[in-house]
Amino acid sequence: MKSLVVQKYGGTSVGDVQKIMHVADKIIELRKNGKDVIVILSAMSGETNRLVGLAHSITPTPNQREMDRLLCTGEMVTIALLAICLENQGYPAISLTGRQMGILTDSSYTKAKIKEINSDVIQKYLDAGKVVVAAGFQGIDETGNVTTLGRGGSDTSAVAIAAAMKASICEIYTDVDGVYTADPRIIKEARRIDRISYEEMLELASLGAKVLHSRSVEFGLKYNVPILVKSTFKEGGGTLVTKEDSSMEDIVVSGLSCLKEQAKVKFIDVKDKPGIAATIFSSIADKNIVVDMIIQNVGSDGLTDLSFTIDAADVDSIKPTLQEISTSIDAEYSIDSNISKVSVVGAGMRSHSGIASKMFKELGKSGINIQMISTSEIKISIVVNKNDTDRAMQVLHDCFELGKS
Amino acid sequence: MKSLVVQKYGGTSVGDVQKIMHVADKIIELRKNGKDVIVILSAMSGETNRLVGLAHSITPTPNQREMDRLLCTGEMVTIALLAICLENQGYPAISLTGRQMGILTDSSYTKAKIKEINSDVIQKYLDAGKVVVAAGFQGIDETGNVTTLGRGGSDTSAVAIAAAMKASICEIYTDVDGVYTADPRIIKEARRIDRISYEEMLELASLGAKVLHSRSVEFGLKYNVPILVKSTFKEGGGTLVTKEDSSMEDIVVSGLSCLKEQAKVKFIDVKDKPGIAATIFSSIADKNIVVDMIIQNVGSDGLTDLSFTIDAADVDSIKPTLQEISTSIDAEYSIDSNISKVSVVGAGMRSHSGIASKMFKELGKSGINIQMISTSEIKISIVVNKNDTDRAMQVLHDCFELGKS
Repeated sequence: MKSLVVQKYGGTSVGDVQKIMHVADKIIELRKNGKDVIVILSAMSGETNRLVGLAHSITPTPNQREMDRLLCTGEMVTIALLAICLENQGYPAISLTGRQMGILTDSSYTKAKIKEINSDVIQKYLDAGKVVVAAGFQGIDETGNVTTLGRGGSDTSAVAIAAAMKASICEIYTDVDGVYTADPRIIKEARRIDRISYEEMLELASLGAKVLHSRSVEFGLKYNVPILVKSTFKEGGGTLVTKEDSSMEDIVVSGLSCLKEQAKVKFIDVKDKPGIAATIFSSIADKNIVVDMIIQNVGSDGLTDLSFTIDAADVDSIKPTLQEISTSIDAEYSIDSNISKVSVVGAGMRSHSGIASKMFKELGKSGINIQMISTSEIKISIVVNKNDTDRAMQVLHDCFELGKS
Repeated sequence: MKSLVVQKYGGTSVGDVQKIMHVADKIIELRKNGKDVIVILSAMSGETNRLVGLAHSITPTPNQREMDRLLCTGEMVTIALLAICLENQGYPAISLTGRQMGILTDSSYTKAKIKEINSDVIQKYLDAGKVVVAAGFQGIDETGNVTTLGRGGSDTSAVAIAAAMKASICEIYTDVDGVYTADPRIIKEARRIDRISYEEMLELASLGAKVLHSRSVEFGLKYNVPILVKSTFKEGGGTLVTKEDSSMEDIVVSGLSCLKEQAKVKFIDVKDKPGIAATIFSSIADKNIVVDMIIQNVGSDGLTDLSFTIDAADVDSIKPTLQEISTSIDAEYSIDSNISKVSVVGAGMRSHSGIASKMFKELGKSGINIQMISTSEIKISIVVNKNDTDRAMQVLHDCFELGKS
């Protein structure tokens, strides 16, 4: 069996015909070295936004099935163009849509989840000596309608295809050369991480490190497909997302992330009795609004304050629900959009204590007030005033010496 | 059974979101009147050219399968947007691609011909009370690859769908309000024709009256689907393309058309012996170059001049073949790109004589030299110097009094 390479190129890597020709050159190099190649593409950068803009100029709430019909066209354009490049240079290639590859998803239009991939079709074309150029971001549901996987979904397509084809690795080419200890635009000492565990990457990805789609990391973890994130435009470097090993445990804190578009909702003087939290959060869940950190402090007077964070984009749509809850439980509420969430992530936290106290102490010394705290096995998240975000990131990056390799 | 309306809107009619919303309004009007509606759309005006441009910036000869994968995306965008408009206004709609409608074609990528349509899928959605928004221009071949029908192919999609669904008429909405006796940009007295036979329309369509795709008229003729060509932006008017009836025979000349991008090839002093013409034209056919008018004059000396016209776009690619032929039959050749073809079309010619002589006499009086002549039952075509084209059109429009209704 020939060795198989699975590569995914994001929107900026296929942003125009020149860049697509550059991708073709990279693939031809692999073919010359005798590799089988599957390449997964995103739409040209800006194209998905353009299509969303067209739909939103009609209505803010377009029909979701039709939205996916619209959005799936961006990847069809790039895969056709790359296949044209390869064929033109004498390298047989075939573009395949989500439907043609049998990428079966559920029917949650615009945020569908992959259930199954028919590896036979892809294998047939590989066996015939073709480069398979696959459309990322898309699949079909059981009734044959096109679905899309949500923003960044092409990463997930790539890892899922790599898993289905039993590839030894999935390479994700993007416009940055890897995952950093913090956003380099905020922290200038931020350092590229060579290796990181799936679990850590999941915490970083879901917390705002925009390098990889969270679902792609979940697929990597589930099927044990190592993911190598690299720059399309720069040789070398890269971050390998892989199974946790003992060397990783020595690194207590791997990286920081922050989410700025957050809001905090607080119910004040809630009667502390069973079922109150259920009342509140089931009403919100019914509106499909995701609640993140939840904090409840019980006072001695039988009254409690209950706070939680939501996406800032959901503030307008949650208000009527909050008003209803407020009436039903007889408690006032407030919304504060002037907050950020900052997180410290590291697999080594499991075996090291004192990380939280060190973190709180250093922030305190710098006069940064912590409004909320939540922790998991490998993560500590705090809510701070939005104006303190960048400073908090800098303090934490310094105190855990993340700039040092 | 509810009455069914089939409408097709061309690229300028869906050129932006505003125009698509205007189309939605027209369809909602029909729904309010209790009609079932199938609407076939082209890509936004300019979009197909943009996509072709992208491919041609890679190579002038892109892989044809991939070209169709690329080109089929334009219609997917417009059908999704129109379905979003309709759904948003409370009118259930569903966009369907060529694949979803089971529009089976041959495998001649970029110029495929429709073989079969699965009317069940469309009927199912009509029965469910939905407006069917169908992608024009596209189908799939037997192996499941996307195909496109060639420029203007959405007209053909529309008439084929109307035939498959046994609709009583197919309405083609475009940016002109019908078929004219001549191009109104050349002849200011040109008049809109109310009714015209399929056969006359075929002669006009294939000769350069760009209103309807020829294949769509062939489908109309074959399945007897009347085609009404109308303006999207103007009420009233229109031209009905339908079966010939006795009233049409009274009209001797229905219209004129001209093709300017033509070239004339002439072989001089060819030995007049059996098989010479076959040698010449089979070599050219092997190169997939279409030869139009052919004229051969036998001289008394056993030598003959043989002329024919081709598309001006084929001049460069035919030259090597002409050189080979020239060597093999030992005759010189010349190419003249400075010509046009002008045609007079009318079903009434069948029963009226003297049209050709009147035509030649009037052109002669105006000093316009006729280089070649060819005739069919309902058409007379001539080749003139390109500079004489517009004047020849004017002379013919006047002498057959086409401006009078």
